[in-house]
Amino acid sequence: MTTAATEADSRLTHIKDSIRSIPDFPKAGIIFRDVTTLLLDHKAFKDTIDIFVERYKDMKIDVVVGIEARGFIFGPPIALAIGAKFVPQRKPRKLPGPVVSQEYSLEYGTDKIEMHVGAVQPGERCLVVDDLIATGGTLAAGIQLIERVGGEVVECACLIELSDLKGRDKLKGKPIFILVDFEGE
Amino acid sequence: MTTAATEADSRLTHIKDSIRSIPDFPKAGIIFRDVTTLLLDHKAFKDTIDIFVERYKDMKIDVVVGIEARGFIFGPPIALAIGAKFVPQRKPRKLPGPVVSQEYSLEYGTDKIEMHVGAVQPGERCLVVDDLIATGGTLAAGIQLIERVGGEVVECACLIELSDLKGRDKLKGKPIFILVDFEGE
Repeated sequence: MTTAATEADSRLTHIKDSIRSIPDFPKAGIIFRDVTTLLLDHKAFKDTIDIFVERYKDMKIDVVVGIEARGFIFGPPIALAIGAKFVPQRKPRKLPGPVVSQEYSLEYGTDKIEMHVGAVQPGERCLVVDDLIATGGTLAAGIQLIERVGGEVVECACLIELSDLKGRDKLKGKPIFILVDFEGE
Repeated sequence: MTTAATEADSRLTHIKDSIRSIPDFPKAGIIFRDVTTLLLDHKAFKDTIDIFVERYKDMKIDVVVGIEARGFIFGPPIALAIGAKFVPQRKPRKLPGPVVSQEYSLEYGTDKIEMHVGAVQPGERCLVVDDLIATGGTLAAGIQLIERVGGEVVECACLIELSDLKGRDKLKGKPIFILVDFEGE
């Protein structure tokens, strides 16, 4: 017999084990955490979505916002299961309608993400989904986009945190829920 | 009382109505079919996935392959529901592991998509998912990638077909299943 707690632990251990680590990508000294191997493991992928759905199903989320590109893989199954809309935040010049855009800093230079005007309505309760939080720049920009149009960010959900990079500090106290941390690894 | 047939028709009508048409994007003379408005309509998005799942659940699909970026939105919910793996086909230099790549022609110049080596195993039955088939170049390249590593493409599933552009001709008889056609519109 397993308790609920050990069952949850074993799901998380299996999820973490299914993520492949690739040294020196995209450049020397970086260890890339590759979720494509998790997507090849049906149980690991399903458990990942189930854990998010268990957490969010009763939190009255109106909109799941997914950040391009891997947020598009994890966000829609959650949105479908909890009865929410799905809104993509995309790289520049990808969305065909009128957009709001938000610039953010990278290590060198800046980047930008965009969201359709009207996709999030004032007062709507939003969950922001991405696969991973590293330095937190993209996620912080995603939150700003939602708040600028009057949406409320209830929480951010990421599969992976690289907590050594202290990305949470950029989120200004916004709650973030993660499944796997690679601290010190 | 509605029959199964009229119920299916009404789902498809609602799905088509939820897709926004944007003239002159990405350039003059093109009408862009925008699925982001479908994603804002929970019933339309859920019906879309349900129709695909009804079709594929008993077809022994091992792998759902999604083409970047909108294939990432529609592929994973299908894969999760039918018990298949999900494999992303991505733009160049996005996948961190060893890849196979396939070049294809655009109106001017060429583009390329990539897939991780080992993601599709020889003999695996694959379903290729994208939001839309236009000229068919990307989809044909996606099929080639799978076949080059020994996978079997059972069918392609697209939400939208622009049949005026005759993209099917590039698929060399490979079956394609679509929900909505904008022929002559």
